Amino acid sequence: MIKRYTYGTPFQTEAVVKNIISENELCPYEQKGDSLIFRFDMEENDIVYGLGEQVRGINKRGWKYISNCNDDPLHQEDKHSLYGAHNFFVLKGKRAVGIFVDFPGKITFDVGFSRLDEIRIIPERTDLDIYVIDGESVSSIIKEFRQLIGRSYIPPLWAFGYGQSRWGYKTADEVRTVAKRYRENNIPIDSIYLDIDYMERYKDFTVDKKAFADFPAFVKEMKEQKIHLVPIIDAGVKIEPGYQVYEEGAANNYFCKDEDGNDFVTAVWPGRTHFPDVLNEKAREWFGDKYKYLMDQGIEGFWNDMNEPAIFYTDVHLKKVFEDIELFKQNDNMDLNDWFAFQDLIKGIPNSEEDYKRFYHNVHGKKVRHDQVHNLYGYYMTRAAGEAFEKYEPDKRILMFSRSSYIGMHRYGGIWTGDNKSWWSHLLLNIQMMPSLNMCGILYTGADIGGFGSDTTEDLVKRWLAFGVFTPLMRNHSAQGTREQELYQFIGTEGMKKLIEARYRLLPYLYSEYMKAALEDELYFRPLSFDYPDDEMAVRSEDQLMVGESVMIAPVYTQNAKGRNVYLPEDMKMITLGEGEELDGTVLEKGWHYIDVPMDSIVFFLRPDHILPLSTGGENVEEVDFENLQVVSYVKTDAVYQYYHDDGCGKDYQNPENYRLIRA
Amino acid sequence: MIKRYTYGTPFQTEAVVKNIISENELCPYEQKGDSLIFRFDMEENDIVYGLGEQVRGINKRGWKYISNCNDDPLHQEDKHSLYGAHNFFVLKGKRAVGIFVDFPGKITFDVGFSRLDEIRIIPERTDLDIYVIDGESVSSIIKEFRQLIGRSYIPPLWAFGYGQSRWGYKTADEVRTVAKRYRENNIPIDSIYLDIDYMERYKDFTVDKKAFADFPAFVKEMKEQKIHLVPIIDAGVKIEPGYQVYEEGAANNYFCKDEDGNDFVTAVWPGRTHFPDVLNEKAREWFGDKYKYLMDQGIEGFWNDMNEPAIFYTDVHLKKVFEDIELFKQNDNMDLNDWFAFQDLIKGIPNSEEDYKRFYHNVHGKKVRHDQVHNLYGYYMTRAAGEAFEKYEPDKRILMFSRSSYIGMHRYGGIWTGDNKSWWSHLLLNIQMMPSLNMCGILYTGADIGGFGSDTTEDLVKRWLAFGVFTPLMRNHSAQGTREQELYQFIGTEGMKKLIEARYRLLPYLYSEYMKAALEDELYFRPLSFDYPDDEMAVRSEDQLMVGESVMIAPVYTQNAKGRNVYLPEDMKMITLGEGEELDGTVLEKGWHYIDVPMDSIVFFLRPDHILPLSTGGENVEEVDFENLQVVSYVKTDAVYQYYHDDGCGKDYQNPENYRLIRA
Repeated sequence: MIKRYTYGTPFQTEAVVKNIISENELCPYEQKGDSLIFRFDMEENDIVYGLGEQVRGINKRGWKYISNCNDDPLHQEDKHSLYGAHNFFVLKGKRAVGIFVDFPGKITFDVGFSRLDEIRIIPERTDLDIYVIDGESVSSIIKEFRQLIGRSYIPPLWAFGYGQSRWGYKTADEVRTVAKRYRENNIPIDSIYLDIDYMERYKDFTVDKKAFADFPAFVKEMKEQKIHLVPIIDAGVKIEPGYQVYEEGAANNYFCKDEDGNDFVTAVWPGRTHFPDVLNEKAREWFGDKYKYLMDQGIEGFWNDMNEPAIFYTDVHLKKVFEDIELFKQNDNMDLNDWFAFQDLIKGIPNSEEDYKRFYHNVHGKKVRHDQVHNLYGYYMTRAAGEAFEKYEPDKRILMFSRSSYIGMHRYGGIWTGDNKSWWSHLLLNIQMMPSLNMCGILYTGADIGGFGSDTTEDLVKRWLAFGVFTPLMRNHSAQGTREQELYQFIGTEGMKKLIEARYRLLPYLYSEYMKAALEDELYFRPLSFDYPDDEMAVRSEDQLMVGESVMIAPVYTQNAKGRNVYLPEDMKMITLGEGEELDGTVLEKGWHYIDVPMDSIVFFLRPDHILPLSTGGENVEEVDFENLQVVSYVKTDAVYQYYHDDGCGKDYQNPENYRLIRA
Repeated sequence: MIKRYTYGTPFQTEAVVKNIISENELCPYEQKGDSLIFRFDMEENDIVYGLGEQVRGINKRGWKYISNCNDDPLHQEDKHSLYGAHNFFVLKGKRAVGIFVDFPGKITFDVGFSRLDEIRIIPERTDLDIYVIDGESVSSIIKEFRQLIGRSYIPPLWAFGYGQSRWGYKTADEVRTVAKRYRENNIPIDSIYLDIDYMERYKDFTVDKKAFADFPAFVKEMKEQKIHLVPIIDAGVKIEPGYQVYEEGAANNYFCKDEDGNDFVTAVWPGRTHFPDVLNEKAREWFGDKYKYLMDQGIEGFWNDMNEPAIFYTDVHLKKVFEDIELFKQNDNMDLNDWFAFQDLIKGIPNSEEDYKRFYHNVHGKKVRHDQVHNLYGYYMTRAAGEAFEKYEPDKRILMFSRSSYIGMHRYGGIWTGDNKSWWSHLLLNIQMMPSLNMCGILYTGADIGGFGSDTTEDLVKRWLAFGVFTPLMRNHSAQGTREQELYQFIGTEGMKKLIEARYRLLPYLYSEYMKAALEDELYFRPLSFDYPDDEMAVRSEDQLMVGESVMIAPVYTQNAKGRNVYLPEDMKMITLGEGEELDGTVLEKGWHYIDVPMDSIVFFLRPDHILPLSTGGENVEEVDFENLQVVSYVKTDAVYQYYHDDGCGKDYQNPENYRLIRA
């Protein structure tokens, strides 16, 4: 049962798709006091699930999370904000309650940080909707929430293939080399991502003509090799007279304005830029239309970046900094307070809260200061694209995922989890974040496999791939200046190939489960506790996941580990793909088991009376035979699997022919 | 068997105490090529132990470590250097070999990073000694190495008590409040640490007369409460005419010089400072003598900080930065390269490699550029103190631990592991680092419990205490501006008290084991694999430790965990202290067990035919009865424990009366 409580005059975020009438009473969790705070008691064993893209474990208890979309590449466990704002959680105690705060500004969730025994929600302002969902179980509450926010985005089938990316591919020839080396090593691949260097001077909706001469021909050439090129689109539009996107935006007042009504200037990758006012309907339509420029050249997928929106600096801020530096400089004996103030001055330049108060949106003619709706920018940028795709290609799925997001955006695209690091702890974070994101409707998601920042190691790439084969978005991505991590860069390439092959063998199941989760508002990734709520040990699990209806995974995420402890909440059959393949593996009894996991193997567990349909693989998704399937099963009494498959590119999701039953 | 190979003309670090004659041949691990590199092959299951204070696991394989003492407070897993330089490791494969590179400059240990199957040691210059130790086992190699480097430092007994610290205690009254609140809560405590604020304008060997009027009386007042005050000493000496330490150092050329022969100027906490030239024998003696100023006021322990040496900035560097900033400022349209260069410019100011090339030591009359002996500074600063203690108090132990260190310093003091964070991953790092440090002779050590930087949580403090009860140095320390983490700051103070009480119960065993480890060149903390080298599962263990001869620990280091999997390499008896005390607990069979670990409990495991002597506790070390002991045991056939105890303050270590046998 959902109840909505409205405070003040909330901004219409369009996060939800159902119109729930607001209650005529105060929210029962409102705390008495001067400022608006919602408060919940927690018993010792209560667990908090959700909050989407955040640090820490599956159980979010014990930290303070702040929804405040932020381009911060150091995702350490003491960070309060990452790129997204996902204000939904479920508190599971003797009863369970789901809470969604529809509020586009900064909001704090103190989940047992200040006091282990309470949750406090502290919004920055008092115009908001809070939805309270009571239900029989955590799963039913989440399902009700998912129905409230609408169906999750569905990408094309090829986007479930493996993708290679790196910030630093500067020319068509460099991209050709990546494709060639994958194909000559017979490592399956379906996409290569183009980071900012494909553009002409980082200008959105341009292609560098020197580095990528005849782009449409190049797109075609790659597609003939069954490789999709997926270009990046950044939030900021370069200020450059004569550049059409800039000229149109400026002429039509489609950019965010400063307080004097001038187009707001900020510096990002292209240097000085304006931000398209994606909260303005007309500007949004205009910006979305621009994606057509690349679609007309054969592009079928995009990733939206820098849309927190990230700010390197603003002139007004930098000018002030330089003035302040002058004072330090003239100070002959800089003391320590000066020294720390000087450092803070510089550290405070990018993504400054002050800068977010310096520009405005035009929302139905009303001037709205950015910081009050800050968390919506990535959502609305992605919505701009999604609405354009619907307009120009109503019957075709286009790949789209974003860095920044807010609940509601999940209907228009997925996300990747941003600029992580080549840290083992970020492999674990990837595992733990997946169900939280699924809860918020974000199903098409994954992390940068191998890690984006800092230098990776061969073993980290392998272990990350072994988890990544299960994430809908499976992309290897890294930053310029770090160790190259395309799979052919390592001595152990042959083993990595086996892991990617396993992905393509698993695709019929993974795609079927993804589609059922999307179409039925279910979760693709689940903590064990959702499926086994009465099993105390399953409830405690923080590093195993259910993937779809048949499979449980227990990834290895520590360096030099040869195996790990795995908890089976019921008897399961252990399956191995890759090195030492065993499709009809040992049945292990409910309980704890120490499992060896060789480096080039994917080891997972099949539930009793469940089926796993496998293909024979392929070097790209098109080569995969989704019809003639190998049926792996663990039958105790009887096993039936409802298999979903469709053409992978159209939108005839409800066609009964997409479903068929598979029996063991 | 130890072999020494000498290359060039090594700087005499005095890391070792035995004179091994150099071989007349090249080191067999030298790689042919233009530059000096030592290279080792690794098989798939080979393990690398050692390297002291470094990130990552007990098995160091899979990363690149650089000995380059560095004041970097972000100990993430991609860092190459922390505060210490500990160039000793053991490679354990079919055979085992121990390697110690006695080289005081920058040196890289690529331990399976570039290639999983090799180790490469790359020194910055070619003047060094490399010691190769072959032995029967990892343990025997380590013991031989420890005999080579000499006996580990032994602190006074009271330094095994619990200590409270925080950067931010500004007055005697604030310290009194800490003492009072511990005593009124009856939480045992033996020391309160004074961070930089006790000094007058951060000047070494001064006391702020306003904040700490009549310091000797205050020291005495605290000592009457059985609390030792432990002041910090920083490396840099403030430049302040009239300040005696400055005047003496300047008059006698006891400070490091710049290339023109002037006293080198750098900025650290006190503002402009000089570095005492601790590599100059006379200067070292002079600086060591200064500790007497505080000893004469009743102080019996110190911690040496900022001795990498840390540099905030130098004027010459800062001047250049301001000049460069001017160029950016004048640039009307700062482009991205400028922007990143500008940021790097500022980031590059502290602890700059360039600055370490700007000053010189006077070593027996020879001018030695600092960067070539950089890793010795903390060692020699601490040695300065140690030699003074020996001179003025030859029969008394003085507490001393340092932030920066090099092998050799372990004879003069312990270390704490520097400015960690309130991260769960740093609790694990603390666990994993302990045996590596012990291998390098550093026995008196521990981490800042609860975490120094960032905000802690109640559960993190508790779990960290539950491990910290086993570390010889048990200190809660935190940074100014972070959440206060004295144990009385939390709702769960009562539970924390139970954990501290357990420490005092355990003291007879912990002290006995510490002393035996120090006197017999053994390890206090050991990976399971050292004791059970043929047990494959013990060999894999990365998160359990042997503590002394009787005990195995398996700390909980993940948030919200109610327990964990524990591997028993043989049958053991589970003991619980604190909540749910059980001294005669369940005997568990060899193998894996999932163990519940309640929040206010310390759960550990007793080996068969071993004894754990316990005291009845006390509110400080003096109150602990080390004679009348409770004997906890797990007897299968027969158990005898060699118990060591002494007066805890003198140095009559070899007195046979210090030993007695305890039988179950």
